[in-house]
Amino acid sequence: MIDIALFGLGRIGLMHGKNLMRNRNFNLKYVYDKDQILSKKIAKKLKSSSINNPSFAYVDKSVKAIFISSSTSTHIKFITEAVKNKKKIFCEKPLDLNINKINDCKKKILKFNPRIQLGFNRRYDPGHAFLRKQLLSGKIGKLEKIIITSRDPAPPSKKYLKQSGGIFRDMTIHDFDLLRFYLVKDDVKSIFATASNISDKSFNKIKDYELASCLIKSNNGVQCIITNSRHCSFGYDQRVELFGSKGMLISGNKKENEAELYTKNSTNQQKPLLNFFIDRYKEAYKLQLNDLFMMIKKNKKPLSNFEDGRRALIIANAAYSSIKNKKSINIKF
Amino acid sequence: MIDIALFGLGRIGLMHGKNLMRNRNFNLKYVYDKDQILSKKIAKKLKSSSINNPSFAYVDKSVKAIFISSSTSTHIKFITEAVKNKKKIFCEKPLDLNINKINDCKKKILKFNPRIQLGFNRRYDPGHAFLRKQLLSGKIGKLEKIIITSRDPAPPSKKYLKQSGGIFRDMTIHDFDLLRFYLVKDDVKSIFATASNISDKSFNKIKDYELASCLIKSNNGVQCIITNSRHCSFGYDQRVELFGSKGMLISGNKKENEAELYTKNSTNQQKPLLNFFIDRYKEAYKLQLNDLFMMIKKNKKPLSNFEDGRRALIIANAAYSSIKNKKSINIKF
Amino acid sequence: MIDIALFGLGRIGLMHGKNLMRNRNFNLKYVYDKDQILSKKIAKKLKSSSINNPSFAYVDKSVKAIFISSSTSTHIKFITEAVKNKKKIFCEKPLDLNINKINDCKKKILKFNPRIQLGFNRRYDPGHAFLRKQLLSGKIGKLEKIIITSRDPAPPSKKYLKQSGGIFRDMTIHDFDLLRFYLVKDDVKSIFATASNISDKSFNKIKDYELASCLIKSNNGVQCIITNSRHCSFGYDQRVELFGSKGMLISGNKKENEAELYTKNSTNQQKPLLNFFIDRYKEAYKLQLNDLFMMIKKNKKPLSNFEDGRRALIIANAAYSSIKNKKSINIKF
Amino acid sequence: MIDIALFGLGRIGLMHGKNLMRNRNFNLKYVYDKDQILSKKIAKKLKSSSINNPSFAYVDKSVKAIFISSSTSTHIKFITEAVKNKKKIFCEKPLDLNINKINDCKKKILKFNPRIQLGFNRRYDPGHAFLRKQLLSGKIGKLEKIIITSRDPAPPSKKYLKQSGGIFRDMTIHDFDLLRFYLVKDDVKSIFATASNISDKSFNKIKDYELASCLIKSNNGVQCIITNSRHCSFGYDQRVELFGSKGMLISGNKKENEAELYTKNSTNQQKPLLNFFIDRYKEAYKLQLNDLFMMIKKNKKPLSNFEDGRRALIIANAAYSSIKNKKSINIKF
Repeated sequence: MIDIALFGLGRIGLMHGKNLMRNRNFNLKYVYDKDQILSKKIAKKLKSSSINNPSFAYVDKSVKAIFISSSTSTHIKFITEAVKNKKKIFCEKPLDLNINKINDCKKKILKFNPRIQLGFNRRYDPGHAFLRKQLLSGKIGKLEKIIITSRDPAPPSKKYLKQSGGIFRDMTIHDFDLLRFYLVKDDVKSIFATASNISDKSFNKIKDYELASCLIKSNNGVQCIITNSRHCSFGYDQRVELFGSKGMLISGNKKENEAELYTKNSTNQQKPLLNFFIDRYKEAYKLQLNDLFMMIKKNKKPLSNFEDGRRALIIANAAYSSIKNKKSINIKF
Repeated sequence: MIDIALFGLGRIGLMHGKNLMRNRNFNLKYVYDKDQILSKKIAKKLKSSSINNPSFAYVDKSVKAIFISSSTSTHIKFITEAVKNKKKIFCEKPLDLNINKINDCKKKILKFNPRIQLGFNRRYDPGHAFLRKQLLSGKIGKLEKIIITSRDPAPPSKKYLKQSGGIFRDMTIHDFDLLRFYLVKDDVKSIFATASNISDKSFNKIKDYELASCLIKSNNGVQCIITNSRHCSFGYDQRVELFGSKGMLISGNKKENEAELYTKNSTNQQKPLLNFFIDRYKEAYKLQLNDLFMMIKKNKKPLSNFEDGRRALIIANAAYSSIKNKKSINIKF
Repeated sequence: MIDIALFGLGRIGLMHGKNLMRNRNFNLKYVYDKDQILSKKIAKKLKSSSINNPSFAYVDKSVKAIFISSSTSTHIKFITEAVKNKKKIFCEKPLDLNINKINDCKKKILKFNPRIQLGFNRRYDPGHAFLRKQLLSGKIGKLEKIIITSRDPAPPSKKYLKQSGGIFRDMTIHDFDLLRFYLVKDDVKSIFATASNISDKSFNKIKDYELASCLIKSNNGVQCIITNSRHCSFGYDQRVELFGSKGMLISGNKKENEAELYTKNSTNQQKPLLNFFIDRYKEAYKLQLNDLFMMIKKNKKPLSNFEDGRRALIIANAAYSSIKNKKSINIKF
Repeated sequence: MIDIALFGLGRIGLMHGKNLMRNRNFNLKYVYDKDQILSKKIAKKLKSSSINNPSFAYVDKSVKAIFISSSTSTHIKFITEAVKNKKKIFCEKPLDLNINKINDCKKKILKFNPRIQLGFNRRYDPGHAFLRKQLLSGKIGKLEKIIITSRDPAPPSKKYLKQSGGIFRDMTIHDFDLLRFYLVKDDVKSIFATASNISDKSFNKIKDYELASCLIKSNNGVQCIITNSRHCSFGYDQRVELFGSKGMLISGNKKENEAELYTKNSTNQQKPLLNFFIDRYKEAYKLQLNDLFMMIKKNKKPLSNFEDGRRALIIANAAYSSIKNKKSINIKF
């Protein structure tokens, strides 16, 4: 068992905390949140100890890893401190909303040769991961197109949205990373993005978008399409399509059960899609922890790392530049 | 082009007439129905000539084939006459409701070495036929189970039902034949049947059933299941499942189009099934005519013949015996 | 947390043990197996205490429930003892292979008004259970047909088979119970069964069957079809179809992921089905434990109980009688 | 019956000719091709008369309509002549490769108030058309995204490609029109396009592309995605997805039959998609003729007309401009 400390106990932090508690490879030694009332409450729930300063986790030699799911603005600080204290790290996406901060951090931590797992959970989804395996085994020949559909069931609160960095940095960032996952040794060359608000005009006020689409090209000429929506009446729509010279792979949606209803009005009627990421990516979160364990135990490179987080933000920034200039933006990593 | 005469111009006769008219291999020279007003009307519609006596077709040497879709009780008579007049024959199912009449006919026509195609249209369905092809090519190993689902969208009129011979002789007879199609050189050994009326008790009055199920065993031990209903709220349910030692084959339902609807209540919602045989087996009816053409032109054995019609009725009769005696009945062909 | 003792630590016992260990509602206080070496080994694995006599569990007042997954022949004895010691009980199927022993037990334990949950896991499957909910809410009108497909990926060892009671008492018993689940207040009236061996003739030697089919009728005239196989090349085939006067419900198979492959040879290619019950009914086993918890905590009637186990065996026995006599057998519960 | 003359007897002209011959509403009075040997050959096949000059069709008052499926460069000339001769017209896509010629023609023919059906066959596809009907009935709320997948099974000959006008004017033009079909009263505002060659570099030589993607925005902010490929190993991939504020509609692919194969390696294996447009859009071509008939008979506005053809080419031209300038191009119709 590996002693670990969890920083940040919001909705996602709590989910990670529960997964850590149930996982036999981890001992959730400390939990920390700047909201100390919350911290104590959650500590009890997760059978852990609440600390009122991250330092307690850093100085405890038994603690091998820091699990960062605090608010985005604290990620870089916690990463830098944890690395200096020779901890292995899990950090939620996005790394930060400011690429300069990330670049500075990158330089600072380089000498420590750090091991940092980035929370791009979709790389760990059994279906999405199976597609990459099939792709690498040559099942569809040369990769030519990547089409990612990602639609949230409902938008987060306006409060959350305002500090989220906007749809491309908060939501599409997952898709930017996912397509890089399929590009393998190839990488993103340029991006054209568009966005609009049709049903919910309140997005205009906060200068954000409910609907976005991106057309991305890789160095090898692979054409990547992302289609996003902040709402989706039928659930959490999460699909990937890989088209290649010799075939196509599709990773489809998940439903609560496999039941179908036939009536005089319609056939093959199934339940709406699983509602959101906690259910849809349940297995992915578990497999992410296994990868984290291997990273800590064996110093193995994680499936998604600091550099993946950095590159995804660079693409997100370029998306905004594309919208502003109505043209394709070349990416420099 | 082959000159052909069509006997019987009811709903199914008319459908066959239209198909014959559109088919480049046939010239629908004569149409005949005992209802002479109908006969003349349909003749005009089908650009054919109405005759008031079948003999006109028999004596016309140019007429190579008689297409029988008249009422069941006339089939044997027309077959016998047509065979004697050296015509090739298509005959709708069932051959007759009386096995003795069929057996007598069999003896009488034997010496003429007749070519008779039986109207078991399902053998010609591209999906159902593809299953047999795959089975014969070894795709699923040894055949072990045949499961046939056949449900009509709505029952015929009580008038029709009364003279239909009952569900097993009128409807299930298609399924008895279809499973023999998949048994290939094997054949039916015994049958257990059950039937009931749940929603529409008016079937009790005419001593017929809206719901039936059969459990049939072949000489090789293949277990065959048939599930029938005279009503089906979502359309004409026509499915076949073949289970073998190395795999399974399913021939599924057909819909009007490939559209799917997703809403907050459900996903994958499709249209009801094609409503009935004229639509569902549209292609089968065309392919049946091609087979008829080859039978006439090249004296080729048709995919389903007189003996198939005879055997299917023997199984249907055994089904009634099984219900009466509540036991499995051995089949003697 | 409820203190519970687990009897029987074979493959299924171990699976239950792990589920109990991970469930927050239970404290697996004792484990017992007549093989004491195994018992000690498993106790360690499950962080429990091994006992060398069931009595230790009976006399411990803190132990509220006995979880019986020992060999079938011991079920009745353990149930009787546990009931006398005022324990609540979970018992794996089948209750016993001898209906007389079950009937005797029934009489003996009656006065104790016992709470016994029977291990018919399929009742707890989210998909199968959803069908019943939809049925009860009137979605498909009056129930007319139940069609259950159940095929194991591969037969158990000959050693297991010899003492299993045969396919109907060991395997089909699940399906007998499942159809009773859908019959709700209706119940089984008669059964016709057939069985054969085609690919694996070694079943003949042990007088058992690899392939079985049943045609069952309920008091209300519902026709129930069961199709079983001890082998299935493409995985653990578990499907239910409910046909009613106003619609149809299907509970389909589960796969490892939602990926599909398209190549020049085929489209929509998916992975084989989940291999066996531990994976396929993973969620069902968890929900079964929740029901057990509610039974113990609130004295709630479990979804499947002793009487369900008794009736399923009566139907299984009738299946053998049907095969012997080649006729439909009336059921007397 | 309407007398009609068919101009252009290549592969597509022949297909139209056969459909006209089989259609009861049309009498294919004349066929014309500049290759007079071909013209005579086809005339025989289609039971029509070959003419060696289009004028014969123009001057024949009985001829109500001219069906133009000759090479693209002749379309405008034939349209202009036919309109002047008061004929109704069907014209294959594209109208022309030169927008100026089209604009000139538009002006010239305006005063004749012409009726011209454009050969955008997909508008007539039952599945695609059903989506529009559902959209208009409000089934998915406000339209927000249109996603069109169109992949040909294999590229045409290099000879054809060289004079085709390039992928956007020859192939994507169908998709440009189809999305306008779903936009209804809304229309295209801007386009960003990208294209590349990955597997077949020979496209580079002829300055054309095997792979293309477009991101189009409508005046209302609807985001439209088109993904094209000149090859597709698994058949002719033709799909439409409409995403709206209250749901989603998908029009899926068609296969030869509904059979599925399950083996130890995979499940749900189906046949490749129908190979190409003649099979895939078989019904669409028939329904297109019905619409043509109504246009001629009742002077009804056709589902797709000259202006639709003009606008689709304007979008295609903008696609090339977008690729050249790597930016979004505003559309002016």
